[in-house]
Amino acid sequence: MQVTRLKEIYKKKTRLSRNLYTRSTNIFPGGVSHNIRYFEPYPFFTTRARGKYLYDVDDNKYTDYWMGHWALILGHSPVQVVRDLSNQIRHGVLYGTANDISLRLGEYIQKLMPKAESMRFSNSGSEATMYAVRVARAKTKRRVIAKIIGGWHGYNTTLLQTVNYPFEVNEGTGLIPQELRFVKSIPFNDLERSLELLRPIKHDLACIIVEPLLAGSGCVPPVEGYLQGLEEFSHNNESLFILDEIVTGFRLSIQGAAQKFKLNPDLFTLGKVVGGGLPIGVLCGKKEIMSICDPTLRVQKDERCAIGGGTYSANPITMTAGLSTLRYIDDNRNVIYSKIDKMGEYARNGLAKIFNDAKLNVEITGMGSLFLVHFLNSRVGRIASPSDVALSDRAMLVKYHFELLAKHGIFFLPSKMGAFSFAHAQTDVKRMLEATTSIIESGALK
Amino acid sequence: MQVTRLKEIYKKKTRLSRNLYTRSTNIFPGGVSHNIRYFEPYPFFTTRARGKYLYDVDDNKYTDYWMGHWALILGHSPVQVVRDLSNQIRHGVLYGTANDISLRLGEYIQKLMPKAESMRFSNSGSEATMYAVRVARAKTKRRVIAKIIGGWHGYNTTLLQTVNYPFEVNEGTGLIPQELRFVKSIPFNDLERSLELLRPIKHDLACIIVEPLLAGSGCVPPVEGYLQGLEEFSHNNESLFILDEIVTGFRLSIQGAAQKFKLNPDLFTLGKVVGGGLPIGVLCGKKEIMSICDPTLRVQKDERCAIGGGTYSANPITMTAGLSTLRYIDDNRNVIYSKIDKMGEYARNGLAKIFNDAKLNVEITGMGSLFLVHFLNSRVGRIASPSDVALSDRAMLVKYHFELLAKHGIFFLPSKMGAFSFAHAQTDVKRMLEATTSIIESGALK
Repeated sequence: MQVTRLKEIYKKKTRLSRNLYTRSTNIFPGGVSHNIRYFEPYPFFTTRARGKYLYDVDDNKYTDYWMGHWALILGHSPVQVVRDLSNQIRHGVLYGTANDISLRLGEYIQKLMPKAESMRFSNSGSEATMYAVRVARAKTKRRVIAKIIGGWHGYNTTLLQTVNYPFEVNEGTGLIPQELRFVKSIPFNDLERSLELLRPIKHDLACIIVEPLLAGSGCVPPVEGYLQGLEEFSHNNESLFILDEIVTGFRLSIQGAAQKFKLNPDLFTLGKVVGGGLPIGVLCGKKEIMSICDPTLRVQKDERCAIGGGTYSANPITMTAGLSTLRYIDDNRNVIYSKIDKMGEYARNGLAKIFNDAKLNVEITGMGSLFLVHFLNSRVGRIASPSDVALSDRAMLVKYHFELLAKHGIFFLPSKMGAFSFAHAQTDVKRMLEATTSIIESGALK
Repeated sequence: MQVTRLKEIYKKKTRLSRNLYTRSTNIFPGGVSHNIRYFEPYPFFTTRARGKYLYDVDDNKYTDYWMGHWALILGHSPVQVVRDLSNQIRHGVLYGTANDISLRLGEYIQKLMPKAESMRFSNSGSEATMYAVRVARAKTKRRVIAKIIGGWHGYNTTLLQTVNYPFEVNEGTGLIPQELRFVKSIPFNDLERSLELLRPIKHDLACIIVEPLLAGSGCVPPVEGYLQGLEEFSHNNESLFILDEIVTGFRLSIQGAAQKFKLNPDLFTLGKVVGGGLPIGVLCGKKEIMSICDPTLRVQKDERCAIGGGTYSANPITMTAGLSTLRYIDDNRNVIYSKIDKMGEYARNGLAKIFNDAKLNVEITGMGSLFLVHFLNSRVGRIASPSDVALSDRAMLVKYHFELLAKHGIFFLPSKMGAFSFAHAQTDVKRMLEATTSIIESGALK
């Protein structure tokens, strides 16, 4: 089906969303409060969500694979989290003080992830990674932060570079060169080249920060030895190895990617799953390192590392949603991970077979419950890095996702990785595979 | 009463909190998730909150003047917000998409504050101010940000300097000089000196960011003409004037401090009240400026200004709490502001009289529903800046607040500004005044 015709179908189904979007452009730049939530011709407006479904204002129902930026591992509004939240709300949403529920969540995280010897709650992943690199600079008294080309750690100033293709171009105006000077970007999955770039600056290298599986830049898993090589280099060099587990923590396994890949990060960041959908970021790490942030230390202010915190840190609503979610995951850990991982495998294998049978040149990347289709072309023959993702046929991917969305009620944020939640079922995979077959057969992906 | 004796009384009343605090120090650096929430000998642990009260795990009840970092203008868990939140929770806490509730909150903000021509939701005040200065640099293509000595805009790297006394010392290790180089700090309430410092760098001055009333650094209101002078200088210089209304927005008046002081900021930030206690930051401003962040602009990525956003931006729970709160405020605006402002005035006048009668040399600062006692000394004869606050007898202030807390069940976060909410009553002021008299008569403040 031609894109223009499909857009007409979408517009007919989403008349109320269109009105709301027009009103939104009068208030929000581009009509959205998050850059990636815009897609053409305009995004639908969600009005409620339950289980695996999103419902828009025109009462269209979508099977959701975006799942709140991949945060909602139990689906939307799981019964036990709703129950605990409803109870907490009557007892306060913001104490602004030390509180028992944050201690309980902290202890639960530590029980599940013993490497979280010490931690600090903040309000977003972007804050957590900003504090992680600040602590690394404080601890090592060095300046350079190494990050991955295409790695995404939120909108904080320090880490906002080499995020989008073309990676060598500044991530927007308003960032000044002096702020960006001490960040060194290295190519994912190319250990030799990465170390080659790091060696000349190793005496000033405070840390390497890396997502174990690159999420935002296209669902790129690590090749054997890459993460371990970076870790080894860091430790030999007395730099800190920081794992950004905001997407992967409690997602790839109950202990996250660190366990999966046998890593021993000095610091790591959590978000998404750990907050049960409520705003959270957590900086975790070795006690000996994190103690530099201790506000009770009796030292000069410039000897301590100042990190937030923030008005909402450890607020009882987020803490309740997180604790409720982790408890449920813990109590049902075998069934949850085996179920979502199986659906992931089924989807990856099923999609590969369908596209292959249709002689469409795609690669399906992913791990566990995460997956993404890439349309290969003359420029890209395999997906090993964000550059490969960027050079693949992204327009075709957007078209494919938009077909799923507009014709089949299956929602991937166009071009973004999909995630299974515990609310999904094998029948959803089947339906997605059938929809994909139908889209291919319609000739839309030619 | 001697401090040590008072601490024993506190310890006896807070045995369970003490246990929780000990456990907390094993997990959180300093046992807290926000530096300022620690106080000696250890903070109590809140377990629930309702109206004007906080309850700790030992079932002590405190009349709360900290009110969730001054966010909770309607008190803890107001009936209508609880009702709306309970309803929303069943329909999803995180959509990750455009949604109607965020549009409704945006439109409501705009209705109440027409200067919010355009806005972007984020997760915390710290994020909002980080994006504000980024947009200013983007728009002006200049580098220098002017902030106030002692001004507080959250833990983001750019604005984390000259926050705590001694102001000339770095705000902790882990911040590198290159990041801090393009921030110029100016003295609050000294227009002549401020402009003297700004003139030499005016061609590179992107913006001036200022809290209309300095909140975190000690409840310091502006002197006549200071803010207006900064605004005038900014506009004559084609720099942006940014008002940080995170504390004052919907607090000093329904239109915030801009209206109170007849200011016309290019950008301003909201937080706290606007989120009804849930995590939020809002960057607001002139449409012509904010449009530089529009993700639908068909320009090179380095011509757009990249700001978040974030996973939780415009999430339906925060949006619901904010909308519910603003509606209630709007519907009851006359009674709310007249009530909380009257309590503020009663408290300021009452405290001044009591301390004066006791021949204790104090100044009570504040405006509207905000107030703080300062113990003057040979170094400081009046409070006009954060330096004055820092040089006043802070130990005495902590002692006074701790007396209120430990003996009278009246909670100010020790040394921090107090705020009235709509849940407080004149009888609370009376009780606070009587407690103050009793503390003075006991000889504790000598």
